[in-house]
Amino acid sequence: MSKQAGLSVRGQDDAACCAPMVREPLGEEAAAELSRMFKALSDPIRLRLLSLIASHEGGEACVCDLIGPFDVSQPTISHHLKVLREAGLVGSERRGTWVYYWVLPEALAKLSALLEIPATAAKASA
Amino acid sequence: MSKQAGLSVRGQDDAACCAPMVREPLGEEAAAELSRMFKALSDPIRLRLLSLIASHEGGEACVCDLIGPFDVSQPTISHHLKVLREAGLVGSERRGTWVYYWVLPEALAKLSALLEIPATAAKASA
Repeated sequence: MSKQAGLSVRGQDDAACCAPMVREPLGEEAAAELSRMFKALSDPIRLRLLSLIASHEGGEACVCDLIGPFDVSQPTISHHLKVLREAGLVGSERRGTWVYYWVLPEALAKLSALLEIPATAAKASA
Repeated sequence: MSKQAGLSVRGQDDAACCAPMVREPLGEEAAAELSRMFKALSDPIRLRLLSLIASHEGGEACVCDLIGPFDVSQPTISHHLKVLREAGLVGSERRGTWVYYWVLPEALAKLSALLEIPATAAKASA
């Protein structure tokens, strides 16, 4: 966070991750980690699942709330939820019969910050 | 943009895309479009390429500046740049010998807004 805007020679890595990419190129390690998170978002069902969890009342959703909106089987939904969890985008906990999911806000905020276009950067440097 | 925060029955689609997903679930069409953009970001080389273009002095980069940092061939870099272009994340233009690339700021801003955690939403509803 203490880094100033401008090109760094090596690019930002985990320690500095994630300044907006319009300010500083990504290092190899940070790119590897972030690409795994983006891969989890690269499927339309997973993206909709994540948005259903994120927007659910109370900030968390029971898997029982997540099956209805889709035309696919429960095991498929469970597989997609596992991918989201393994990518560090959601947390989960079993309570009784059902598993509950919530988004990990730091993960979303990290990706959002990376893609942010600071007002001063948009076309200012063109 | 005139939609209020809260759950919508159908979820946001192209017209409303992209409010933060913590406010409103994504519709099918929006999720399909956005997942294609995230897929383009799901490869570490493409992510580094995009960040090199985005942070390059003057807001654009010649393909000749984008080959050096990588241990892969020029055709591989060209392929990745094509994927970024087809996903609507970068624009390009040939000038003389070289092709130049720049990021499309609206595309990055759209993804960033989708993943944003508004300060009031983080844990406020938990």
